[in-house]
Amino acid sequence: MQLTINKSRLMKRLSELARIGAFSDGGVCRLALTDEDKAARDQVMQWMKDLHLQTHIDQVGNLIGVRPGAKDIAPIVIGSHIDTVPTGGRFDGAAGVMAGLEAIESLNEYKIQTERPVAVVTFTNEEGVRYHNDLLGSRAFCGYISPEEAYKTVGTDHTIFGEELKRIGFAGEFPSGSIRPHAFLELHIEQGPVLDREQVSIGVVEAITGIAWYEITIQGEANHAGTTPISMRQDAGLTAARIITYLREIANSLGENQRATCGAISFYPNAINVIPEKATLSIDLRNPDKTTLEEAEQRLLDFLEKCTIQDNVQIETQRLAWVEPRACHTDIISTIIEATNELGYSHKTMVSGAVHDALTMASYCPTGMIFVPSKGGVSHNPAEYTSADELEAGANVLLKTVLKLSQQKM
Amino acid sequence: MQLTINKSRLMKRLSELARIGAFSDGGVCRLALTDEDKAARDQVMQWMKDLHLQTHIDQVGNLIGVRPGAKDIAPIVIGSHIDTVPTGGRFDGAAGVMAGLEAIESLNEYKIQTERPVAVVTFTNEEGVRYHNDLLGSRAFCGYISPEEAYKTVGTDHTIFGEELKRIGFAGEFPSGSIRPHAFLELHIEQGPVLDREQVSIGVVEAITGIAWYEITIQGEANHAGTTPISMRQDAGLTAARIITYLREIANSLGENQRATCGAISFYPNAINVIPEKATLSIDLRNPDKTTLEEAEQRLLDFLEKCTIQDNVQIETQRLAWVEPRACHTDIISTIIEATNELGYSHKTMVSGAVHDALTMASYCPTGMIFVPSKGGVSHNPAEYTSADELEAGANVLLKTVLKLSQQKM
Repeated sequence: MQLTINKSRLMKRLSELARIGAFSDGGVCRLALTDEDKAARDQVMQWMKDLHLQTHIDQVGNLIGVRPGAKDIAPIVIGSHIDTVPTGGRFDGAAGVMAGLEAIESLNEYKIQTERPVAVVTFTNEEGVRYHNDLLGSRAFCGYISPEEAYKTVGTDHTIFGEELKRIGFAGEFPSGSIRPHAFLELHIEQGPVLDREQVSIGVVEAITGIAWYEITIQGEANHAGTTPISMRQDAGLTAARIITYLREIANSLGENQRATCGAISFYPNAINVIPEKATLSIDLRNPDKTTLEEAEQRLLDFLEKCTIQDNVQIETQRLAWVEPRACHTDIISTIIEATNELGYSHKTMVSGAVHDALTMASYCPTGMIFVPSKGGVSHNPAEYTSADELEAGANVLLKTVLKLSQQKM
Repeated sequence: MQLTINKSRLMKRLSELARIGAFSDGGVCRLALTDEDKAARDQVMQWMKDLHLQTHIDQVGNLIGVRPGAKDIAPIVIGSHIDTVPTGGRFDGAAGVMAGLEAIESLNEYKIQTERPVAVVTFTNEEGVRYHNDLLGSRAFCGYISPEEAYKTVGTDHTIFGEELKRIGFAGEFPSGSIRPHAFLELHIEQGPVLDREQVSIGVVEAITGIAWYEITIQGEANHAGTTPISMRQDAGLTAARIITYLREIANSLGENQRATCGAISFYPNAINVIPEKATLSIDLRNPDKTTLEEAEQRLLDFLEKCTIQDNVQIETQRLAWVEPRACHTDIISTIIEATNELGYSHKTMVSGAVHDALTMASYCPTGMIFVPSKGGVSHNPAEYTSADELEAGANVLLKTVLKLSQQKM
């Protein structure tokens, strides 16, 4: 008998959760530690209790529901988040938590006794919108940030993380950093167009991308667009344009996992007949391989050096963020592929170009990620969509992977 | 005996005029038809009367002071403007009018009877800041715009040109379009860096640039900067960057008089981790040769066509402005050069990359322009500067050119 999850039960929970923080056009807004987040947490806690899990709220408000195993050993942990961006959809994060609960309800239903405990976790403040300290919950779960440090985080609305956590009643006492999972699994929507476009059911994540963020400020000289000969210009806007076109060259030359994007720009004084005196642009470089990501950064910096000479401008470079890429665990990758094949779903190994709680977990314990398709690659948007069948497939792969891992030695 | 102007008299008038509308950091603000413009007009009218000129105020408020010649034939007209941009300097426009008055005072002083009448004109609303209808005074002077049409112009402050002209007492009765000059001369600061950098005293303008202004809107697709493979992107920002770098190629390939500038840009949504869905940019193309300017436009449009295919984006193009270039009159150019040589000043023939009243006049009567250096190429700025010696040289060339033209047949 093929053990499978119950699709309608999964979709029912997902719909109920999506009602909390719903706004008019089908979107969801549940910023971390707001009243909406509290209501969603209360609902998840209730579901965990309905499934007879041992529930814990840890010091940073991570919700943990444990289904005991035959032995009291390191658990298999399934986790994701239920906070959203301001104009989010109903799948990002929530899909992973709901699939985890559904996997456990299936174990209950089939009365399966796993060797290892199986736990579901919802991590606090993954999105990092209200509190810029993103992945805060998973980082505290791994002991990478202390609860005391987390409490001090100031929100964009000037609230204090620790105070808001208390206010909504989720400042727990279970020590963060006290669980070291045997394995961590996260099911998530892809948030990219690949699975949808290639009509593949399951993305098996091999690595989670590293990120380097820069702000580049180019200082030239403002001058009259008509009276200044080309040879006498110090056109900061032209340099900005050269950098953006070079980013595409970087991406094209460093393999298909390299991403390079300029998303934001501004010119000063930004007038049609004035040569830009100043240009500011943002740069987002990503690669799942650390050495290649560093190579991309170096090429960028070398190019900037060339531009200062060629265009007679000054360039200031600020690295705003650096996230080290992480590989998923090879044994877990194979287990997910095995499960997918046994279930008869198509799969594709791929890189996660976005950051997830699994990135934090991957440096803490063996970690795997299961992607399900995002229609049109859209996410962080009310139009975000994954079909019930696609979610069912992902949850089935999750369940089968949990079963395999909870029996097996690693 | 070398006939020359009186430098200290010239500088005195320039200083007195600069006090009207002066603001703290040395700048001048005299928007057209404001109280400051009225005060400056009153002052100029007074000076014209002091010089025993026949004064007229025409229907759009152009101030005309005529020194009769031996014969009542077509006059030599010297003209420029005394309105400024909001944060202007003391030389742009004013230098030309003050040099004209000084040339006439020198004629008076030396009791020279010219064959032709010599007139000084200050044109209304050259800058086109308060009333976007720029070069309004010179266009009415040539009969290219009727006083009735001019009166209807609505200001950025919602005032009506005709009403404001009456309010300040300069709605004259002298018919605009009734004087057809034998020749028109304008002395102006270069507003570019060339004379200053090359240490040349006099710029002899051969042609006044034409201008084509565009707004380009590129529509791509917003997507996640991490999860969207390069091959699946529709990056409006990248296309914008390609266009900007191509503008430099246009300029480099169409000769040194071609200018091509992107001064203003915006991305939407303008976020570091989102591929731009939309990019808007301004384009300023200039060339003193109409055919070449049209060639530059065509190359731009062809390139946009290529981009829509290469980058899978849509591009909308709007031509915001088109100003036809005008050549100065060859006989006047030679006369200015002759005068400059006789006075022993260095000169350079050049193109005016900015627009002036002389552009309008050049299609109405034989026209010439004399440029004096702008320190660092700076203009439309309180730091705008031309030295007393440089102005003296320019005014001397103006006077000598007037003398030559007022005797000679053309």
